[in-house]
Amino acid sequence: MKNTPVFAVIGGGSWASAIVKMLCENADSLWWYMRNTNAIEYILTEKHNPNYLSSVEYNTEQLMLTANINEAIAEATHVVFAVPSAFLQNELEKLTTSLAGKTIISAIKGIVPETSLIVGEHFNESYQIPFEKIAVITGPCHAEEVALERLSYLTIACADETEASLIANYLSSDYIKCKTTEDIIGTEYAAVLKNIYAIAAGIAHGLGYGDNFQSVLMSNAIREMKRFIKKRYQMKRNINDSAYLGDLLVTGYSVFSRNRMFGNMIGKGYTVKSAQLEMNMVAEGYYATKSAYAINTAAGKKKAKTPIINAVYQVLYENKNPKKVFAKLTDKLN
Amino acid sequence: MKNTPVFAVIGGGSWASAIVKMLCENADSLWWYMRNTNAIEYILTEKHNPNYLSSVEYNTEQLMLTANINEAIAEATHVVFAVPSAFLQNELEKLTTSLAGKTIISAIKGIVPETSLIVGEHFNESYQIPFEKIAVITGPCHAEEVALERLSYLTIACADETEASLIANYLSSDYIKCKTTEDIIGTEYAAVLKNIYAIAAGIAHGLGYGDNFQSVLMSNAIREMKRFIKKRYQMKRNINDSAYLGDLLVTGYSVFSRNRMFGNMIGKGYTVKSAQLEMNMVAEGYYATKSAYAINTAAGKKKAKTPIINAVYQVLYENKNPKKVFAKLTDKLN
Repeated sequence: MKNTPVFAVIGGGSWASAIVKMLCENADSLWWYMRNTNAIEYILTEKHNPNYLSSVEYNTEQLMLTANINEAIAEATHVVFAVPSAFLQNELEKLTTSLAGKTIISAIKGIVPETSLIVGEHFNESYQIPFEKIAVITGPCHAEEVALERLSYLTIACADETEASLIANYLSSDYIKCKTTEDIIGTEYAAVLKNIYAIAAGIAHGLGYGDNFQSVLMSNAIREMKRFIKKRYQMKRNINDSAYLGDLLVTGYSVFSRNRMFGNMIGKGYTVKSAQLEMNMVAEGYYATKSAYAINTAAGKKKAKTPIINAVYQVLYENKNPKKVFAKLTDKLN
Repeated sequence: MKNTPVFAVIGGGSWASAIVKMLCENADSLWWYMRNTNAIEYILTEKHNPNYLSSVEYNTEQLMLTANINEAIAEATHVVFAVPSAFLQNELEKLTTSLAGKTIISAIKGIVPETSLIVGEHFNESYQIPFEKIAVITGPCHAEEVALERLSYLTIACADETEASLIANYLSSDYIKCKTTEDIIGTEYAAVLKNIYAIAAGIAHGLGYGDNFQSVLMSNAIREMKRFIKKRYQMKRNINDSAYLGDLLVTGYSVFSRNRMFGNMIGKGYTVKSAQLEMNMVAEGYYATKSAYAINTAAGKKKAKTPIINAVYQVLYENKNPKKVFAKLTDKLN
């Protein structure tokens, strides 16, 4: 069939590994790019990724593994980016192959630090990819549960409904249900903002606030998210759909969320630097906080009321005392 | 001051004990009725309730404790009912004192089984209390966290804004923030329905569904709750306010929730009877499921789409297999 899509997955982390697993349920074969050549060797001989979702066994006959991003992309019709947003630009700079005509699928939950744009906007503005050729894969979905084949729901956003359905079909299986939407901007912002709220939840927990407060925080967070997204892109959406509220909850209530864990350490008294050193990584929400705050601050009349984002910003970037900042925040919530 | 309210709290359980603690922060004294005379003796000598929130120390000089409900109510201007909904009618039958002119405050999260009415409607229809004299105290609020003085937010609903504010003032303290609303019907239904969704969350957990599914379930539950309440009483409300979404989350995500625990046992294979025997109590959501299902089924054209309530009903009252019922339910969620 000449219309059979060829997928390339860019990234070797847990979410990339989960997406490869999902696609392998439907695609005969696919390209999989990761930088780590040792991991590639390992997958080819041991059938699983040594570093992430190691319980997932791959049929390596389906995998065209490569450490050359241009090779992975060359023949692909659909390129799924699943690297941390902070590394995206670095990967894209390696490209000699054109992205023109290909469908770009963002599985990244972050803002590109170099441009302060969400990934879809970044591809549109910096690479002239039309929005009909940009799609977003969004949760609520912990990769670890995909590994266990626990029922999960994804939302595929694309301005072109046919594209959205095609991608949805390739990701769907016994344990994955997909719905589609046209709201690329809203679903991407939701995926970005939820990490900030997860940091807030972590800080609150670290400071000793309990479950009653946590539920009030999440109730305020979804209202804040609605206001923020509405200012960025107005369209009819139900903020309580899984892609927005569900995604917020799965992250905000997860004790395994790196963003929540990072916040928790800050709440318990770690400095931002020491928390990052201790975790040996930077939580996506750290960058997202700076970008979301900047975007909203620059929005002039279109500014949304965002007390939670502002509080997290003050703690992470203005070196303010978390206890004092959150005490003030509690008066702004209801 | 002739306008100083006199509160009476009816009930000796954990929520009643928490409300007494909150009121003691502001009222010089108050009536507290409970059936258990041993518990009354114990509180008077040991300064704390032997059975619930035993870490809370009361200043017994503030408490007018009695096992006679008529004595408690006689001089009260504000009567707070905080007994399980299944026992309310039983308590009310003891009344020889009239409720006329008093403000009736429901802290009950359930439907009165004898009338299938929420508590506010029950007092209105069966006791001719006007809605201006009926108030509702709603969470999100685990009583255990009030005992620990962890910051919690309450919503006080009353058709009379002055009454709502007065009650809010008497409940507020360093660790309790209150807001007010006119939505008595909506907040009460939310408090009732959330227990059904907590049972659903428990069943799903017991059946082995994971966190990804749980977040989708909650995202669908709040949308279902919105549809249900809108059919009962249409007014402008934000379903994501703490009294609705917050209350759903604090219960649905709590591993200590009796309703969630009950559902969990059912999901793991206990029969309804054996789960109730094992827990040595009946979860509020058990009755709520029957009533909510009946109310919605009888609603004719005003029926709301309620796949989650229907699924829980089938499991609890039609002896259907939870695994099969939930497998079908997953197709109705998104």
